[in-house]
Amino acid sequence: MNCFVIKELEAKNVADGVEMRVISGEKMTMVFFNLDKGVEIPEHSHPHEQMGTVMRGSVELVVGREKRTVKKGGAYHIPSNVVHSGRCLEASSEVLEVFSPPREDLKT
Amino acid sequence: MNCFVIKELEAKNVADGVEMRVISGEKMTMVFFNLDKGVEIPEHSHPHEQMGTVMRGSVELVVGREKRTVKKGGAYHIPSNVVHSGRCLEASSEVLEVFSPPREDLKT
Repeated sequence: MNCFVIKELEAKNVADGVEMRVISGEKMTMVFFNLDKGVEIPEHSHPHEQMGTVMRGSVELVVGREKRTVKKGGAYHIPSNVVHSGRCLEASSEVLEVFSPPREDLKT
Repeated sequence: MNCFVIKELEAKNVADGVEMRVISGEKMTMVFFNLDKGVEIPEHSHPHEQMGTVMRGSVELVVGREKRTVKKGGAYHIPSNVVHSGRCLEASSEVLEVFSPPREDLKT
């Protein structure tokens, strides 16, 4: 088993206000994000299916033509290849996302 | 997008003290567990790769021959087909797990 304390995983600052910690598997990738208020994730898409949950704070997601606010205790599912973007609504928000197949571009 | 409030998802009591809420995808399955203190998940294995994180409380996991306590803020990765079991160490523990390929047996 690989067992981790999330805050002890290597953190990557992938953009201003976006900190990422990654656990890589064979069939999926789990990513823990720490987001500053106001941070925007621009529109993008990928063949990987994506699921996520907000563990702290809140985010606004635009998926296809749909805009939704997801708060702590909320979760979402973004199918493969659907264009999506996000914006962090609260300071120190924490979001967990998983991708399958694994994100080779995020591999640790 | 499918967007959910976790506590509003249909809960299944799969065993005494084990409540489960499932989000099904094409390539993976996300499961939110609520666990009572002392609950034991017997040894089992499956071809699905498994990752998890403890969102509240703590659990003891035995994976292969390794025993570890995972607390809130901890995460783990269980490869395909490795025998594992678990025990909940604290009242009202909350664990998120994801499986790939999707768990057809848990499909909603």
